[in-house]
Amino acid sequence: MLYVTRREVFSASHRLHNESLSSIENRQIYGKCNNPYGHGHNYVLEVVVAGEVDPITGYVIDIKSLKDLIIEQVVSKVDHRHLNYEVDFMKGIIPTTENFAIAIWNQLSGKIPSGKLYSVKLYETENNYVEYKGE
Amino acid sequence: MLYVTRREVFSASHRLHNESLSSIENRQIYGKCNNPYGHGHNYVLEVVVAGEVDPITGYVIDIKSLKDLIIEQVVSKVDHRHLNYEVDFMKGIIPTTENFAIAIWNQLSGKIPSGKLYSVKLYETENNYVEYKGE
Amino acid sequence: MLYVTRREVFSASHRLHNESLSSIENRQIYGKCNNPYGHGHNYVLEVVVAGEVDPITGYVIDIKSLKDLIIEQVVSKVDHRHLNYEVDFMKGIIPTTENFAIAIWNQLSGKIPSGKLYSVKLYETENNYVEYKGE
Amino acid sequence: MLYVTRREVFSASHRLHNESLSSIENRQIYGKCNNPYGHGHNYVLEVVVAGEVDPITGYVIDIKSLKDLIIEQVVSKVDHRHLNYEVDFMKGIIPTTENFAIAIWNQLSGKIPSGKLYSVKLYETENNYVEYKGE
Amino acid sequence: MLYVTRREVFSASHRLHNESLSSIENRQIYGKCNNPYGHGHNYVLEVVVAGEVDPITGYVIDIKSLKDLIIEQVVSKVDHRHLNYEVDFMKGIIPTTENFAIAIWNQLSGKIPSGKLYSVKLYETENNYVEYKGE
Amino acid sequence: MLYVTRREVFSASHRLHNESLSSIENRQIYGKCNNPYGHGHNYVLEVVVAGEVDPITGYVIDIKSLKDLIIEQVVSKVDHRHLNYEVDFMKGIIPTTENFAIAIWNQLSGKIPSGKLYSVKLYETENNYVEYKGE
Repeated sequence: MLYVTRREVFSASHRLHNESLSSIENRQIYGKCNNPYGHGHNYVLEVVVAGEVDPITGYVIDIKSLKDLIIEQVVSKVDHRHLNYEVDFMKGIIPTTENFAIAIWNQLSGKIPSGKLYSVKLYETENNYVEYKGE
Repeated sequence: MLYVTRREVFSASHRLHNESLSSIENRQIYGKCNNPYGHGHNYVLEVVVAGEVDPITGYVIDIKSLKDLIIEQVVSKVDHRHLNYEVDFMKGIIPTTENFAIAIWNQLSGKIPSGKLYSVKLYETENNYVEYKGE
Repeated sequence: MLYVTRREVFSASHRLHNESLSSIENRQIYGKCNNPYGHGHNYVLEVVVAGEVDPITGYVIDIKSLKDLIIEQVVSKVDHRHLNYEVDFMKGIIPTTENFAIAIWNQLSGKIPSGKLYSVKLYETENNYVEYKGE
Repeated sequence: MLYVTRREVFSASHRLHNESLSSIENRQIYGKCNNPYGHGHNYVLEVVVAGEVDPITGYVIDIKSLKDLIIEQVVSKVDHRHLNYEVDFMKGIIPTTENFAIAIWNQLSGKIPSGKLYSVKLYETENNYVEYKGE
Repeated sequence: MLYVTRREVFSASHRLHNESLSSIENRQIYGKCNNPYGHGHNYVLEVVVAGEVDPITGYVIDIKSLKDLIIEQVVSKVDHRHLNYEVDFMKGIIPTTENFAIAIWNQLSGKIPSGKLYSVKLYETENNYVEYKGE
Repeated sequence: MLYVTRREVFSASHRLHNESLSSIENRQIYGKCNNPYGHGHNYVLEVVVAGEVDPITGYVIDIKSLKDLIIEQVVSKVDHRHLNYEVDFMKGIIPTTENFAIAIWNQLSGKIPSGKLYSVKLYETENNYVEYKGE
């Protein structure tokens, strides 16, 4: 079993806000992340695929096909977008790093051409990141 | 003469858009950076102060006072903000990295307690950055 | 289950020395790390908390509260300090990266406000680091 | 149980090519990685050793002995070499990152002086890496 | 005057060898960099353009056009190639980092659509890099 | 003219303290950097040599000879040492980053075998660094 990782970078903006809470509660929970116009990040995404090495190719997965899948399913939909308003797969989801990582997992799950999705690691800043393994 | 650099990081969102141009022109010039809801970055700011070493302290400038000045004059005003709508010193300025670096220079210029402002370096992403030296 | 990581940096000095061994033995085991005046590092600390996402907030843990806890329990006690002489929670412990990581775990364990402590990762240099998971 | 990591860097070249396939098949599978003269990378290798802390030394393993082992068994044999033609332990192996990581594991396995080999992580670029845990 | 930098990464192999010298002299000068099969690097290229800000766009140069130029004139010709055998603009040039940086400058010089080429910075490894400013 | 940079890393400890000032003044100027037992850093040193390319070798300077010089004149004398007590070339000098960079310049100046010393850049942390060009 090998673990193959592909890293991609994209820029997006978001606002942390729960519609079912009051303005005061939102401010208490999210602080400056609740500022109304939103703010943004250069997100760094690492997708890990686990599998056995194909004896013909020496690959678990052609990393280019993994890159293309991540771009098609994730980066092309979120890069230079506002996560609260412009991203279908984030509709109705509070765009915390946690929820965003789970949503990215769901975008990729079942579509990996070879091996299986093992982990999604999402850096919001150089100091904060989240990992999700589908369970 | 020594060159002392302090690095700070902040997260903001922006939209590249020139009000005096048509929607089509804005799209042609700025591409996805013109998306209406904006997008964001983890900006990395490096401020360079040049000066001679004080023989008593061994400092050109107390780096803590430089840090405090950058936070007071820049970071506290732009972190978790939308540059187009919420930042006084960016009012009426298209928030390209170039214009933002010049505006940051203007925020700091004349306020350095010791030595003089030499350069403002602003990274928008790990692949794109701009430097301004005040002339 | 999500894994949320917070990264903090601090600077400290230490000397590797076992009081119960002779000078010669200490020199043989620790080499230049046994130099009497000590030396120092910019330590990079990554603390990982594992937990489920709260459906109201979208957080496993408010990363700011995790940051505050790490600063209170660890950084404020070790930053700009000598680990052998000035840090209560390192008293009587040889400050190898291994022992230091375990001691940091013990400082944080049982105090995480939401989710549970999963891992402490401690970088001594860009080439050497240690991870501890509490067992 | 602690996990101790040592990072080393080396530069090598390789060509992805399966002798048992036709030129066309090799081109289809490997694309530009099949270019006949090969290309190269600054590989980053992280070797993780797991073990308990020795109460006398405070070490799982003397990191210098781990470094020396990695240099002797891996770096000295691959640095500034072409993996297809000049490296004994890669003979007959297609030098994908996957196969290379496994071969490095085999070079180190059974030779760790203290603790046991837990993981080999190999970065081909800043965007692509592979991890192998021996099973 | 602003200085705008674009960073690109590519992987290539090379061999340091001067055809007009003997094998022994080549070995004395270049050491392991003279190994016959060559070796490789993940080169990091930073291209700096200097110019004034266009008041309409807020740009010195559209960074996408700079990126496209670097890819067309440099990356597409050297990525996954052997610099000694496969790159027209390196023909007859010993591919040291110094010579390679000058050759990249010559590839770009006179083709910058806006502003002027100020500097080419080329990293061979994380520890070695070269800068050329055209004079 | 080319600018060739070599990067080296070392770990040292220091205390900021001016013997000619009172304890109170030292505390006011240096804050926690004045703590009596000192603290430490992983210093990153970049040495830049400027010169013309030798047409025979394609080098400004053999980077290995530059590395060896830096190790001999600087790293071997400061690595794992306390700058206030154990380093001859820092005797009587307050070990601020500024003064340390100048002292490193003086250690290297006049000893570069080919080209001339252009700049010494010294990172104390990832957020603070100093550059000195000899004038």
